[in-house]
Amino acid sequence: MIVQKYGGSSAADTAKIRKIAHRAVAAKENGNQVVVVISAMGDTTDGLLELAHEMAEHPDERELDSLLSTGEIVSSTLLAMAIKSLGHPAISLSGIQAGIQTDDTHSHARISGITPERILRELDKGCIVVVAGFQGVTKEMDITTLGRGGSDTTAVALAVSLKADMCHIFTDVEGVFTADPRLEPKGLKLKEVDYEEMMELATYGARVMHPRAVEIGQIYKMPILVASSFNDQSGTVIRGGMCMEVRNKVRGIAHDVNVAKVTIMGVPDRPGIATAIFEPLAKANVSVDTIVQNASIDDMTDLTFTVARNDLSKALEVVTPMIKEIAAKGIAHDAKLGKVSIVGSGMQNTPGYAARMFRALYDAGINIELITTSEIRITCLVHESKVPEAVRALHKAFNLDEA
Amino acid sequence: MIVQKYGGSSAADTAKIRKIAHRAVAAKENGNQVVVVISAMGDTTDGLLELAHEMAEHPDERELDSLLSTGEIVSSTLLAMAIKSLGHPAISLSGIQAGIQTDDTHSHARISGITPERILRELDKGCIVVVAGFQGVTKEMDITTLGRGGSDTTAVALAVSLKADMCHIFTDVEGVFTADPRLEPKGLKLKEVDYEEMMELATYGARVMHPRAVEIGQIYKMPILVASSFNDQSGTVIRGGMCMEVRNKVRGIAHDVNVAKVTIMGVPDRPGIATAIFEPLAKANVSVDTIVQNASIDDMTDLTFTVARNDLSKALEVVTPMIKEIAAKGIAHDAKLGKVSIVGSGMQNTPGYAARMFRALYDAGINIELITTSEIRITCLVHESKVPEAVRALHKAFNLDEA
Repeated sequence: MIVQKYGGSSAADTAKIRKIAHRAVAAKENGNQVVVVISAMGDTTDGLLELAHEMAEHPDERELDSLLSTGEIVSSTLLAMAIKSLGHPAISLSGIQAGIQTDDTHSHARISGITPERILRELDKGCIVVVAGFQGVTKEMDITTLGRGGSDTTAVALAVSLKADMCHIFTDVEGVFTADPRLEPKGLKLKEVDYEEMMELATYGARVMHPRAVEIGQIYKMPILVASSFNDQSGTVIRGGMCMEVRNKVRGIAHDVNVAKVTIMGVPDRPGIATAIFEPLAKANVSVDTIVQNASIDDMTDLTFTVARNDLSKALEVVTPMIKEIAAKGIAHDAKLGKVSIVGSGMQNTPGYAARMFRALYDAGINIELITTSEIRITCLVHESKVPEAVRALHKAFNLDEA
Repeated sequence: MIVQKYGGSSAADTAKIRKIAHRAVAAKENGNQVVVVISAMGDTTDGLLELAHEMAEHPDERELDSLLSTGEIVSSTLLAMAIKSLGHPAISLSGIQAGIQTDDTHSHARISGITPERILRELDKGCIVVVAGFQGVTKEMDITTLGRGGSDTTAVALAVSLKADMCHIFTDVEGVFTADPRLEPKGLKLKEVDYEEMMELATYGARVMHPRAVEIGQIYKMPILVASSFNDQSGTVIRGGMCMEVRNKVRGIAHDVNVAKVTIMGVPDRPGIATAIFEPLAKANVSVDTIVQNASIDDMTDLTFTVARNDLSKALEVVTPMIKEIAAKGIAHDAKLGKVSIVGSGMQNTPGYAARMFRALYDAGINIELITTSEIRITCLVHESKVPEAVRALHKAFNLDEA
């Protein structure tokens, strides 16, 4: 049994949906039971959001979820019609019908469980089952949506629940690359990548797949194939348990240009100061990415955090009036930053990667604005305009140019 | 408690939906508990049908119902957002959520029952409850649509189930008229009309409300107000138990111009012949309206039936090859016909109406092509071009011009 997922750009119009139908039928004729998860057609969701904002400045979130869920119902029913018109039995199921249960956090609900009985019954009848992605239902029978990466999450969770052999994510890229081929033409497609590496790559800018879907795959050991929906090239398999010791230890370079930095200078170093700053930001729904606090001198410290660029003005609105309150010295910000990261689980407990990274950036004349690391990742903030150069410099420095 | 229903032309855009929100809030502020049933916005349904037909020549009916149901989910969520933005609690419920159970006849399902617990719970919380019209759900949790007049049917059935005081149908006409004011400027709005009269008027061309919704009103004695959604004029109340004896016995003139006639000539008059003709028509999904069979001469008869004009070619396809089979003499058809009817429950068991009707048409120089009657209605088929004249002649002949 396989679960296939197709994103919005793969389902942009009826002709593309017909192509998905052919792919699903081909998978069925190869002897698989097939479940297809589909996103809303192209920019349907944007159109619905526009309607909602014509209706109310701050549309009710429960209503918004019901509204947005129609986008995937439309695409799923059209796909089922297309498969049937090819002579194969098929049925579409909405989130409710497919048994996708979630909590009641509207607009970014989490899947709490799946009752796959209806799906299994339809598979047993020989149907290709088309499931509307991105949506679920609460205990109260209210519709929820899963937020960013929602359809990927639906697909991987369904694959786990149905004990599928694999989850196929078909998208507009051919797989996971050592670096974005648009910035580094020498970027190579990885045949395989580890779950944790993929999560770091995804979180730090590789727009292949949402990290939360990868995380479910990791927890339940579900192998995930990422491949293009526009051709038949082999993609990248995300899985665990690969031999760490024998391979190149840096697996890929991730980047992101949508970064803004806020620095609060001369913050008194006393307990509770971080809470005083970050609780109001959370309440204002500003998602803070990285936080760096310098070592304290004379009981004063500089505190820097990064946010997505379109959250910067909201963040400044919240933080600026705070300066007086917490008796800090001032505030600075920079909206034109980007991130470059090196990722590889082989980096764990191995020294020298950071030094090599900083040296490569220094040799390329690129100034580092901020550094942050995880066990298997090192990230540097640099000026936005320097991101492409930085990616290429790192790709070369860690020998990723070599096949 | 009142149930209000708004049709697609009353919800054509977000500005019109905002007007509905104001009306619903006004009804609430008058001290009512309010349930609003809403149709899909304007021509949404046509757009979805077009997508379906791009996808498959004959789209699967189950899938089509799921697809079309999204139209009312969109409008109901937008209306709930609009009401909330006016500061009143509101919630939208889809057919599933509102507990509208139906049989599994896709595209023209019948409501089998309503479990209104969720609606009552939300009303108790003080919400205006917005229900997506036109849709329901089978025992299997498959989505169905109710076919023509579906949202009217949802509204009246909900009103019955919730024991509402009245069901308000807001539409693009101001009520039920003695004749269509576009054809007969002297046509007067009726203050009240009996269920049976309304059913005959609706069936025979008065496009105010679907007869099946009226029938539910009649069975459960639910009074129905039909009024304009565009102004605050008083409308027409449809109810039972009015004093038949004292009022004008012809209550209104209905008309319809979408009529075609097929005559099979020289049909051998033997048992089973009607079955042989009408069973294949039913199988081809041709809805036959009126059937007239002349008295038999020499064991031969002429058999005439009428169909909606856009079903004529399909009807001829089915019937023409049959002529030889049943040894009839020939076939004739006329696509350019219309119907005029006089309706009034006071006509029951009272002679003279038919003669007066035929005389009025004769005096106006209008030829009658076919006659058919019920207990409270007499219908004549006339040439399409003569319909407006016929309506005016009958309006005058039965003194409907007088207030």
